[in-house]
Amino acid sequence: MTIPQEVIIKEVGPRDGLQNESVIISTEKKIAWIEKLTNAGVKYVEVSSFVSPKWIPALADADDVFRYLKRKEGVTYAGLVPNEKGLDRALRANVDEIGIFVSASDTHNRKNVNKSIDETLSILKDVVKTAKREGKSVRGYLSTVFGCPYEGHISIGQVERISNILLEMGVDELSLGDTIGVANPVQVKQVIRQLKTTIPTGKLALHFHNTRGLAAANIVAGLEQNIQVFDGANGGLGGCPYAQGATGNVATEDVQYLMESLGVNTGLSLKGLVQAAKYIAPHVGLELPSYQHRLAQKEDDGA
Amino acid sequence: MTIPQEVIIKEVGPRDGLQNESVIISTEKKIAWIEKLTNAGVKYVEVSSFVSPKWIPALADADDVFRYLKRKEGVTYAGLVPNEKGLDRALRANVDEIGIFVSASDTHNRKNVNKSIDETLSILKDVVKTAKREGKSVRGYLSTVFGCPYEGHISIGQVERISNILLEMGVDELSLGDTIGVANPVQVKQVIRQLKTTIPTGKLALHFHNTRGLAAANIVAGLEQNIQVFDGANGGLGGCPYAQGATGNVATEDVQYLMESLGVNTGLSLKGLVQAAKYIAPHVGLELPSYQHRLAQKEDDGA
Repeated sequence: MTIPQEVIIKEVGPRDGLQNESVIISTEKKIAWIEKLTNAGVKYVEVSSFVSPKWIPALADADDVFRYLKRKEGVTYAGLVPNEKGLDRALRANVDEIGIFVSASDTHNRKNVNKSIDETLSILKDVVKTAKREGKSVRGYLSTVFGCPYEGHISIGQVERISNILLEMGVDELSLGDTIGVANPVQVKQVIRQLKTTIPTGKLALHFHNTRGLAAANIVAGLEQNIQVFDGANGGLGGCPYAQGATGNVATEDVQYLMESLGVNTGLSLKGLVQAAKYIAPHVGLELPSYQHRLAQKEDDGA
Repeated sequence: MTIPQEVIIKEVGPRDGLQNESVIISTEKKIAWIEKLTNAGVKYVEVSSFVSPKWIPALADADDVFRYLKRKEGVTYAGLVPNEKGLDRALRANVDEIGIFVSASDTHNRKNVNKSIDETLSILKDVVKTAKREGKSVRGYLSTVFGCPYEGHISIGQVERISNILLEMGVDELSLGDTIGVANPVQVKQVIRQLKTTIPTGKLALHFHNTRGLAAANIVAGLEQNIQVFDGANGGLGGCPYAQGATGNVATEDVQYLMESLGVNTGLSLKGLVQAAKYIAPHVGLELPSYQHRLAQKEDDGA
């Protein structure tokens, strides 16, 4: 098994982890959480989203989080934007990197932003142009890459087409998302192998949800394809708010444990990540689906 | 990725899944559960354990479960035994297959059965001899293969030595157990690759616990080494009784989902397995760690 010796784990918890939560975490607590994450060695945090507060009330304080956050040197604090209006806010907040998003499924994209993929790409083209002009790097989130709740199967050709359009716009890195947690390791290898025919591996990141327990297996498949950037959400936040313990994003600390067990260096502290998860857990008010957080709870209980 | 087209999933829930539970499930309910499992296509069930009821009160009714169980043709109903006394009970219960167990860690073995590995092997030699004379096949469970809570690392050489002793006794299949859920995919491949130098692959099965979320990744590693028998416990039962949602054995239905997603045939019905998990869940009284069971619950809740 040939895998990279070193990878980067990007933290998407404060944005992707919280956006579906019904609870509102205070700005102060979000900032304290982010500080715990960067204290654990995290070098990339997706801090918030500059979408309309009407869409995502949980992230309505994006501007304030950036305003009051004490930035650490060497850490990239990123913000997601849906359009030029969001970009304006993100630029005023002086985010380090702009995140944009589009779905690989036309139906999912329409349900999400009420636009076709091509309409969204046309809007994003201007967003990326402005962002780059302002000296910002851009990360593109491509969702439902491995399956869509409405369309089911998504063709690799479709993923490749959109990926190349995004990269031609100037997007620096693509995060390929398994939005509903249906990817499997054979498929992950197939998709990456195909994308690598036109895209350098270094432009690709993987973003898994652990809905069906396959996130670790999918990450290993990505590693075997030499992918070196993986997203995680501290605590495994980002699950469906309707069911306790339902899992969303793969937990950053579970990815860290996996990497440590495989001998892959990340620069992160497992203990620090678990402490960050312990900090946010009571504020979210759900039992977190993170394995490492659960194990730590058991230890605390003396079990 | 070359993997087998067909595998066997062996159900250990009624024994390994229940043995650590503090609740006592009635004999009648155990039998109804086992019937649901075989209705889902399960061809191998580890029904119970003929250890002293003092050790494992949850399985004290092993004799009665076998007595009242209506056996289905083509299904192997197995029983675990610790020694000749247990074997006598198992033979009187007319089990289809005898399970024996020993740890790859001397400390763990002593904590478990108060004997050294070699003392245990000496007892098991007679057990296997009698079982074979009575025309029974024998499955050997080797625990802590991938790590021990007391000794930590377990050498592959030690695993290989014990495996070969068991096979020389006449054991038909070895189930290599990751008792505390610390295995990782690189290690799984290493261990199997080494064992295959002296043991036919067809003699080996893998038994994972999902304590740290790596069970699916470890199973994929096993598949890539051409292993074709995997253990699972319906519902993911077998976790630590001290923490809600703490995961023990990998859930049979989660293994089934993995196999289906990889296009590997098992002969099992995912829906049937989930129904079996739904049946046993309220009787166990814990939130089951099974992903497929949780997804089914969410669907039932209309989420």
